[in-house]
Amino acid sequence: MTQGKFIVVEGLEGAGKSNAQAQIVKAIEALSLIKGQQIEIVQTREPGGTPLAEKLRAIFKAELNGEVLTHKAELLVLYAARIQLVENIIKPALARGAFVIGDRHDLSSQAYQGAGRGFDTTFMNTLKTLVLEDFKPDLTLYLDIPPEIGLARARNRGQLDRIEQEAMSFFERVRAAYLGFAKNDKSIKTIDASLPIETVNDEIQSVMRTWLAY
Amino acid sequence: MTQGKFIVVEGLEGAGKSNAQAQIVKAIEALSLIKGQQIEIVQTREPGGTPLAEKLRAIFKAELNGEVLTHKAELLVLYAARIQLVENIIKPALARGAFVIGDRHDLSSQAYQGAGRGFDTTFMNTLKTLVLEDFKPDLTLYLDIPPEIGLARARNRGQLDRIEQEAMSFFERVRAAYLGFAKNDKSIKTIDASLPIETVNDEIQSVMRTWLAY
Repeated sequence: MTQGKFIVVEGLEGAGKSNAQAQIVKAIEALSLIKGQQIEIVQTREPGGTPLAEKLRAIFKAELNGEVLTHKAELLVLYAARIQLVENIIKPALARGAFVIGDRHDLSSQAYQGAGRGFDTTFMNTLKTLVLEDFKPDLTLYLDIPPEIGLARARNRGQLDRIEQEAMSFFERVRAAYLGFAKNDKSIKTIDASLPIETVNDEIQSVMRTWLAY
Repeated sequence: MTQGKFIVVEGLEGAGKSNAQAQIVKAIEALSLIKGQQIEIVQTREPGGTPLAEKLRAIFKAELNGEVLTHKAELLVLYAARIQLVENIIKPALARGAFVIGDRHDLSSQAYQGAGRGFDTTFMNTLKTLVLEDFKPDLTLYLDIPPEIGLARARNRGQLDRIEQEAMSFFERVRAAYLGFAKNDKSIKTIDASLPIETVNDEIQSVMRTWLAY
């Protein structure tokens, strides 16, 4: 294998992204076993994944003592963290032949900042192209869940962060955007994440087996 | 006065930006006196000037323990800090009728990241327009100095930061870019900052008196 693959898990808060990543790891390990060849797995998260990008994540997540984080500053911090991760971690890993599993990537910005905050498509596409050029995931699993269910799960995990405290209408716009992107891009597979976890896991394994072709 | 003015000081390390800001304050105070009307003065610096933008400044300035800050991430961090400052501090101050004196603004990015790092003009203009739209300073004083003189002064002040440690050829590109911008934009006034400080101060007062028309 000369070039690795970049697989991204996307979805609302509480959709089950961590579980999905664990399922993807299992599927890649199964592929390793069948091929009799160790496959390196690199797990990343966005925003974050490098020491510097994690500092930007903290700025993004934190309550700001009354200072309003403007929507544009939020978006630029996210892209700064993203390009730092892509250039320093993801691209070198892919060049080594690793499978990179990303907890969120650019689609999150398209959904949360584009649709959620209301930046228009031209603005979002121009910025994305300036920063990422044509870099994109090979496969995205979008875990679809009604926001009220996802947020209830997130609330059970503890304190909600700055984004998780947005209004329900914000998350409805984000979800609608994710569904729209998935409809128009064959590299995005939608998983119904409101089903029982065993069913979700079976569905992820089925999607991965087909995609990895083993 | 219904709308304030945004006056920016630009130049290489050690060009005398702090002194120039003090001179601009004096000129505005003289205008206040003559008009018999108190003029609010707000001083800002970039990157920085809000609690959040100062956090981004720290990321920009710091040595990174071996993690390379990519040129794009650097630029995006600078623009995140800039729009945060513009929207939360500069624009409200201008709306109150204040004079805002900026220690660096967008021209620094055009010179250091555009010319210094090698981003092309189309890239730089597209990003600037996405972030700032048509916002720009009313007046810029560019303090021109040969880099070897400026850096010797900066070195005398203490440890050089991440940017100040760039090669001389980097600063030569930055200076050439500043001079080119000044040639094509009448709102940028070039001051020969290699002259004795009394001469520089006289020149700044002369430029300010003409511009403020008092």
